[in-house]
This record gives sequence, structure tokens and C-alpha cells, in this order.
Amino acid sequence: MEKRLWNHVLTVRQQSPLVQNITNFVVMNNSANALLAVGASPIMAHAEGELADMARICQSLVINIGTLDDYWFESMLQASATAQRSGKPWVLDPVGVGATLYRDNAISQLLALQPTVVRGNASEIMALAKANNKATKGVDSTAASDEALDAARFIRYRYGSVVCISGEVDIVVGEGRPIYIRNGDPLMTRVTGLGCSATAIIGAFVAVVEDVVEAVSAAMALLGISGELAAAESAGPGSLQANLLDKLYNITEEEFAMRIRVSHEG
Amino acid sequence: MEKRLWNHVLTVRQQSPLVQNITNFVVMNNSANALLAVGASPIMAHAEGELADMARICQSLVINIGTLDDYWFESMLQASATAQRSGKPWVLDPVGVGATLYRDNAISQLLALQPTVVRGNASEIMALAKANNKATKGVDSTAASDEALDAARFIRYRYGSVVCISGEVDIVVGEGRPIYIRNGDPLMTRVTGLGCSATAIIGAFVAVVEDVVEAVSAAMALLGISGELAAAESAGPGSLQANLLDKLYNITEEEFAMRIRVSHEG
Amino acid sequence: MEKRLWNHVLTVRQQSPLVQNITNFVVMNNSANALLAVGASPIMAHAEGELADMARICQSLVINIGTLDDYWFESMLQASATAQRSGKPWVLDPVGVGATLYRDNAISQLLALQPTVVRGNASEIMALAKANNKATKGVDSTAASDEALDAARFIRYRYGSVVCISGEVDIVVGEGRPIYIRNGDPLMTRVTGLGCSATAIIGAFVAVVEDVVEAVSAAMALLGISGELAAAESAGPGSLQANLLDKLYNITEEEFAMRIRVSHEG
Repeated sequence: MEKRLWNHVLTVRQQSPLVQNITNFVVMNNSANALLAVGASPIMAHAEGELADMARICQSLVINIGTLDDYWFESMLQASATAQRSGKPWVLDPVGVGATLYRDNAISQLLALQPTVVRGNASEIMALAKANNKATKGVDSTAASDEALDAARFIRYRYGSVVCISGEVDIVVGEGRPIYIRNGDPLMTRVTGLGCSATAIIGAFVAVVEDVVEAVSAAMALLGISGELAAAESAGPGSLQANLLDKLYNITEEEFAMRIRVSHEG
Repeated sequence: MEKRLWNHVLTVRQQSPLVQNITNFVVMNNSANALLAVGASPIMAHAEGELADMARICQSLVINIGTLDDYWFESMLQASATAQRSGKPWVLDPVGVGATLYRDNAISQLLALQPTVVRGNASEIMALAKANNKATKGVDSTAASDEALDAARFIRYRYGSVVCISGEVDIVVGEGRPIYIRNGDPLMTRVTGLGCSATAIIGAFVAVVEDVVEAVSAAMALLGISGELAAAESAGPGSLQANLLDKLYNITEEEFAMRIRVSHEG
Repeated sequence: MEKRLWNHVLTVRQQSPLVQNITNFVVMNNSANALLAVGASPIMAHAEGELADMARICQSLVINIGTLDDYWFESMLQASATAQRSGKPWVLDPVGVGATLYRDNAISQLLALQPTVVRGNASEIMALAKANNKATKGVDSTAASDEALDAARFIRYRYGSVVCISGEVDIVVGEGRPIYIRNGDPLMTRVTGLGCSATAIIGAFVAVVEDVVEAVSAAMALLGISGELAAAESAGPGSLQANLLDKLYNITEEEFAMRIRVSHEG
């Protein structure tokens, strides 16, 4: 599988998919840069008046509710409904779900539109599945990834989505046995929005890779490995942010192959 | 006092307070990263529909009017009124006050809700107190910090806020004699939003440190010293931005103790 | 001409013009930092209630439609109409024009207000002039700069704007023969919003340099040369972003003079 995942990295670089993002104000710049670094073409556009035109030219859609409000939610709903109707892959990042009723309600409506992929930390995935109604602590995960496995399976069963639980271990739940990815570095949690970057990168991979579980796994492995390599030469979160973009851009097959830790073992 | 200020830095790292920010589009990413670097947990959320829930889980609130408009102002008003009612610490950054009547009006309403701390440059603090009605030059300060002392005392007297005048020298005006902090580097003025980062970091410190004057002083000293150390190894404002986050994250007691210049001398 | 262009760089540093930006969420931070790095003072403000006051204190205006919506468009229209009426220089960045009808309509209304400068990539300039109605591929250029020369001349003729076609070669079309600038580095296309930074920097130069063609040429040469120098010491787009701001800030006359490639040769 490792070799196929690397090939997916190359596919994104070669096909440079156009990914529409309706995301939060905090991470727009980072998400765009992450997409450019992996070889994709980001579009950040949310006006209702151009959603239909954007849907026509983009190959996938990323929805992220980080700085949600009523106005943006309308755009998110319309864009994801269009994606669902046309069978275009779309990815949902339920930032902070479980923290407020407002987010829970918004996410329920978005989930009903059957996202191709849902990516969140364990707390968010559990909140999504109502397996856990406790307020999450901000946007950080306070639970371990495997605690959210049942919740992920529930979302998979109910909405048909591939679910990615990200954390110290990333778990991808879809067809077949879950895939566990053990890459990344703890310093990555001290940079804002790297979870959102993960979601954006997943958006690029599902645009060009047919097997959704593999697309998600390749995206998470790429980010995790790049993060490890970047952290090794970073004095803190500021330099990590820059080094991570560098590494997403210039990572080689050898670096990828030497580092990747992916398996079906929980 | 120096030792106590360092202990406050440690308290933030240990307690990792959840800080809600309703701030401007320019600095959202930086403010979130600054909060993460000092060990706090940032939340950027502004929708009216979730303000009450957010208030319940956050330990402090930061309001920053940088890219103010009517819609965001409503959220700011509601969130700060809730903070005032519940006795939760909240910090106000009056970006650009004095430049437009629109900002002056908005700030008057926010001030009436008695922020725990107000942080601005000398021009802004003077504009706040109507001691100075001249247009500020953008968001840069054109006056020296001590010129704003009377204005700060007026705000302190009228609204009960601790006032932080930031600039080449930072002055904290509250109970007792003002505290002067002489740290920082001129290159910091060439990075956008470091004043806003200061305000955000103050938000983290007042969330967990009872003595507000000390909380503000610790936050300003931490940022100033980290800025000095970061500037020493930066070729310009771009690398300073990254190095500053690194240093906020990894600063040691020794570095802090060797550099801190805090006193009651004007 | 090279010497005069360098003198314009110095003029911006000395006069530090106040530049108002109504721009997109993705690049607000970068544009502000680019303006600070070249010595200008950025203001990011868009509320209708303060546009008139802002117009009074700013020396130029930058309008960028990257994350356009109806609400922001109203502000853009009002601000640029005010600039036109008062003869204040203003710069238009038609991000993504040609991709959606929504953008095409918005841009038509803005163009009618006769921007002092229009800067876009070749696809955007051609879309502007209706010489090309094909959807652009996101915000990247898929056409070479010289293919857009006729379109630029048309905009020049119709609206009186100086037109800057940016790309591998930048072409400035105004009075007299076009100016070609052959600086920059391909890695710059992998950092989001450097085109927007170009537009913002142009805004600083037209605020203080009377000859618009020279102002634009100086801005583009400064960014291109700084980009080359920064790219030479960058491992990828993340470090390029930081190094570019450093270089915009500390570039010397010698570096500028040794690198600049400007001519009337197509």
C-alpha cells in the first residue's frame, strides 16, 4: 500500500486539481498554501452568486466550519448540496462541533448531504455521532483516536462517508478494515490550523484518486511525514509552519518511503 | 516582581486557558498562533448564535476592532456584555480609534462595558480618552507612551480598566504606581498585528492570574523579551514573525530573567 | 530608468504612505506585511460607516476581489467611487475574473470607475477585456503575458488605466511603449497571494510617485528582485514567504541594481 500512497502524491502534483474551499478566516492563508505546496490549485470563494459557476470548474469541495456564522453557513449548505447532487467529492471539517449547539445543528444539516469524507479529531468525531455530548475543549482533541472508532463507524454507516479521526494516530474508517497512520509530531498541535490543512489536502487527493480510503490515507501520511521532517529542523511552531510548507513541496519518494508507518493494526 | 512574572508565564503553560477571540481578519492566524505558542488554547468564534455557549466554556475574552463592521460589532457588544455580567475577564484592543468617528462610537459603547484591560498604543489611548482627537496615522503610534499617561489614568478612573500603553516602553496603569516595561525591538513594528498578539496574550494571562496588573506586565514582558531574542536572529520582519512564535514557545526562565527590564521608574 | 526606479523605492520608505486595502481574507495578513516591509503603512478597513473618514487620511486605495461577496462589493464600489471623485490613485486586482459571471459583473462596475492601475495575470487581463471568455484555471495564469497585450491596450484606451500584466515577464502598459520586467522566480507561484502583494505594493508606489508607469514598474521590479534573492535561499514556498518579506525590507541599492532587468524590448 505504501507505494500506492506515494503514487497518489505524484498524481496530485501532476493533475493539480482545482479545490474550492469554504473555510474559516483563521486558516484561509495556510490552507491555500498547503494546497499549493502539494501541487494543487486552491480557490477560496463563498459568494452565493458564484457558487454554481465555481462548482462547474472545481474538482472537489472543502467545507470547514471554524468561524461559522449564518451567512457563511448558507453558502456551505448550497455548495455541498450541489456537490452531492453532481457526485463531486466533498470533504467536511466539523471544527469545534460539540462545543456549541449552534455548531451541532449546522453540522447535522451538512452531514445529511453525505460528505465523501469527514475529518476531525476524536472529540469532534464523537460529538458528531452524539456518542459524546460533552463540550470539546476548544478545537483541540481531548480524547485518543481509537476512542472514536465506534463513532466513526456510525457516521460511515449512516452517511456513507469515509471518516478520518486525526490525532497522535490517524485512523481512516471506510470500506474494509480501518487504516492506522502513525506519522506526525506533537509540535504540530502548536500551529493553528494544521488539522484544517489536513482537510484541505484531503480535498486535493479525493479530487484525483478514485479510492477514497487510499486518497485520505495518502493525504494524512503526506502531512504527517512532512510534519515529522519539518519538526526535526524547527526550533518551535513558527519555523515549523514554514518548514512544513517547504517539505510538503519538496518531499521525495525516499523520504516518504523511509518514514511512512501505515497499517491495519490498531 | 520579575520572579512572579515568570511564574505567571508558567501558570499559563500549565493551565492552558481557553481564550475566545472576536478579532480582525488580518491577525486571526497570528493571534491564534501566539496563544498556542504561550501554551493557551485559542477559540476564534463570533456567531451570535453560539456566543452564550462559547462564554460558558472560555475563561476570558479578547475583543479587537481592527476590521470592524456593523455585523461583527454586534457580536463584540453581546460577548463583552456577557463577560461583564458574569465577571469574566475581557480585554479590549481599540485598533485605529481616533482615525474615524465610526471607531470612536463603537469603542465608546465597548468601554462602557468596563473591559478588564485596555491595550493600545499611545495615540489610541489618547484618542480613547478624548485627550487627543487628531486622526491617528493608521494603526501605528505617533506619540510616545508617556504622553498617554494622563489618558490612561482617566480610563482607569472612569471605567476601572487596567490600561496598557504599548510602544518603545510599555506602561501598565492600574492599582498603585504605573509599571514600565522596557523590552522589545523596533523591528517588531514592521510585522503586522504584533500589538494584536500582545492583546491576545494578555487575554491568556488575565484568564489565570488574579492580579491584573501583574498579568498584563507578564504578558508584555514575555512578548517584548521574546521579540528581542527573535529579532537578534532575524534578517527582517518575515523571519521575525516565525522566530517570535518559536521563542514564545521555548523561552526559558534564564532568558526571561536575564532580559527583563521592568520597574516603577518613568 | 533603473536608477529612477530605485529612487522610487527610497521615496516609499521615506514617505511611508498610508494605503487603504479592501482586499480578500486569504491575503490580508500578507498584504499588510508586504506593505510594512517596503516601508508603507497599511490600513485594512471596509465598513461603509468609515469609508469617508478613511479616504480622508489614506493616500491611495487597493481593491482586490479575491473573496468577493455582495457585502464587500458595496464597500469596494463606494471606496473606489470616492477615490475616483477626489483624484486619489487607486489600484484594482481582478482576482479570478473570467471564472464566474459574478466576478465579471463586479469587475465591470469597478472598471467603470477608472482605476489608476489594473494588475492581473494574463488570463485575468484577457478576461477583463472580453478578449477571452474562457474560465480561468483558478487564480493562476494559464496564458503568457504577451498574449494579453492587446487586452491591456484596450483597457488602457477605454478606462485610462495603466495595466500591469504579471507573470514570468511583467508588462506595464501605459503612456509610451510597454515596459517589460524580467525578474522573479517560479517558486513565487507556489506561495498564495504574491500577486495580491504585488497589487498592494503598487498601491504604495502610486501614492507617492507621480509617474504611474514608473511607480508600477518600480513596485514590480522590487517584488521580482526580492523574490529572486529570497528564492535563492529558500527550501520551498514556506521559507520563501518569510525570506521575501525580509528582502523587501532590507534590499540594498546594489542588490537592486545588479539584478534589475527592465526594458522596452518585448
